[in-house]
Formats: sequence, C-alpha cells, structure tokens
Amino acid sequence: MPLAHHDATGESVQVRIEIVIFDGFDELDAFGPFEVLSAAGFDVELVVVDKPGPVRSMRGVRLDVPGVLGRPDGIVAVGGGWMNRAERGSWAQAQRGVLPARLADAAVSARWTASVCTGGMLLAAAGLLTGRNATTNRAAFDELRGYGVNVIAERVVDDGDRITAGALSAGLDLGLWLTERELGAERAADVAASIDFSLRSPVWRR
Amino acid sequence: MPLAHHDATGESVQVRIEIVIFDGFDELDAFGPFEVLSAAGFDVELVVVDKPGPVRSMRGVRLDVPGVLGRPDGIVAVGGGWMNRAERGSWAQAQRGVLPARLADAAVSARWTASVCTGGMLLAAAGLLTGRNATTNRAAFDELRGYGVNVIAERVVDDGDRITAGALSAGLDLGLWLTERELGAERAADVAASIDFSLRSPVWRR
Repeated sequence: MPLAHHDATGESVQVRIEIVIFDGFDELDAFGPFEVLSAAGFDVELVVVDKPGPVRSMRGVRLDVPGVLGRPDGIVAVGGGWMNRAERGSWAQAQRGVLPARLADAAVSARWTASVCTGGMLLAAAGLLTGRNATTNRAAFDELRGYGVNVIAERVVDDGDRITAGALSAGLDLGLWLTERELGAERAADVAASIDFSLRSPVWRR
Repeated sequence: MPLAHHDATGESVQVRIEIVIFDGFDELDAFGPFEVLSAAGFDVELVVVDKPGPVRSMRGVRLDVPGVLGRPDGIVAVGGGWMNRAERGSWAQAQRGVLPARLADAAVSARWTASVCTGGMLLAAAGLLTGRNATTNRAAFDELRGYGVNVIAERVVDDGDRITAGALSAGLDLGLWLTERELGAERAADVAASIDFSLRSPVWRR
C-alpha cells in the first residue's frame, strides 16, 4: 500500500524519503532506517550528493547508486568515519563541504531532516542544528555542542523538523519513531513486530 | 587488531566469516550481523554463490559483489522473500537448489553455520537443521518444523555448530552472541556499546 500525505492543494502525494550515503558511510547507519522506513511503506531510496555511480562503504561493500539527493519529503543523514578522522566518511564529507551545503539546501523544502549517529555532525556542519536539541554518537557529544547544539543523551531526539538518533542501532528506533509520528502507533507497532524490535527508550520530544 | 584462532597444527589463523547474499535478500538480515561481526574484528565479507557480479536486494539496492562462498570458518545465511514466495529471494533460492547445495558443502569444513530470519529456511533446505534446535521468522515456524526441526521461539538459538536467529533485528543479537562465544563477554560488551545495543533476551543453548 503506497503511503500518502496531502499537500497544500489537498492532493494526495506519496511520502518520499532519501537516505544520503557517501564513500566511507557506516552500513548499519543507512540500512537500519532504510529497512524500517521501507517496511512501513514509505518510498525510500539510498542517494548520493554528487553524480550517480559507485559508492564504497566504510568496510568495503560496493554499491551502485543511481539516485541523487533531490527534493524529498524527508532526509536521513548517516555517519561513519567521524571519530577516527577517516579519509573517507562523514568527517571527510564535513571538511569537503559539498554534502553539508546540499543538506542545507534540501532541508529548506523537506518536511523534516533526520540523522543517525555522526550523520548528526553533518547536519550540524550544515547549520541545521544550531540552537536545536539533538543527539549523535556519544563520543561526538562535545563536538556537537561546539556547533551550538543542546545535546540530549537519548536514542532519538525529536526537535520538530530535526530528528536525530544516537549510535548505529538507534537508527532502527529513528525509523520506528518516524513511522509512528507520520503514520500512527499502530503502524509502527506492526513494523516493529515484523523486524522483532521495539523502541528501547522513550523518544525525547521538544 | 586481526582476530585469530589456532588450527590443528597450533598455527594462528584469522577467523573468516562469509555472509551469503542473493537477488532479493533482505538488507537488515545481511547488514545487521555484517556490522556487528566486523566491529568485533572478524574478517567478514558479503559473498554470492554463483559468479561474482551485481546483486539486487529485495528493495532494489544494487551491490557489486566480488566474493564467492568459499571455505570460511563461519557462514551466515540470510533471508528475504520467503513468506510471499517472491520470484527473487530465499524461497526462490530454495526452489532453485544451488544455494542450499553450496551451503551444505561449505558447512562441512566450517566451524559453524548460522542464519538470520528465513535464512534458517535455507539451512533447513540444505539439510543442515534436521533433528536440530533452531529458530527463524515466526511466520515460518510451521514450515521449519516440516524439515524435522525442533523450533525454539527465541531470538537466538545456539545448537553448537548451528546458530539461528529470528526475524531481522535478531541478526544484531546473533552477531553479538557469536562475538561473545568466540571472543568473550568483554569484547561483546564493547561492541554492543559501540552500536548502542544489547542482547534483548538470553540465548537458548543446547
């Protein structure tokens, strides 16, 4: 069943979510929310910010990614390679600047922008978390504060149009929370049962 | 730090784990244990059973997989597309027969063979679970019993050289349990903390 929301004209449109990956991305950061949000029935795609083509995960899995970040309803940024300052990964992407700039641009028209793990640092580098409540990998809490963010040590922090999750497996919680928020608790419970998972702790809400 | 065990000659060898994927595989089934076992320091690779090349997940993610199932220390079979009898997926692979035959062959020399979700049905189709204690996706319990398996409704069932996990997110528990079994509870706890996860329930052991 395709999921839909109603736009300003009252027309029913499908909810599209793009998960942004890059060389050095962490696999579970991306595939956790991808699985949950897809199972919930959203139109979900892994995308890149540059030209379509090969992407290599932080552990060498090779993907062929045809999609480029466009104007989705929801955006999920992922992490990988931040704390160790890897040459490929979220930290390298923050230094390069192209991904944060594109996230900032896409966030203008998106209904919400979310992150898993140090994907939150990319949102911060994009200026999307300044003065906001957010979380990231615990090891990056101090760095996140350096971007003017009020860090909340919970698995999922919902600050309205910015929703951030903690390390790795919290991406599953993020997916379930977004499902509950957009489609209701019943649908979220069905999806949780299908993957044999449940929210580990209450979501922090502004 | 490369992990090693000692072979019959006392020589130290690295522990190699191969996770077998195929067209229509479920993403989290594969990437859950991939993340955990890689984070633990094992040599882990996604592999195919036929010739190397493109693989498309059940939701259309395209992977370029160079590795073919060989003679690893550990094997993980994954699911996807069993219950709905999809044209691509674990059920289609069971009908085709090549993957179960290769799993049966590779299991002869492996120290253990494991599965996530309906990957357990592939192990059953390979004859690897006959007379054993095992689990799979709850919706396939009756079918698993049809293969002469004693079904145990737990997230992870350890029957010695056959270790099976339930649906989807239980692949994370499988990875943590294999880490604890091979490398000790301290290492498993470190990995669990790094992905902000913990075993959801005790592992069933024979």
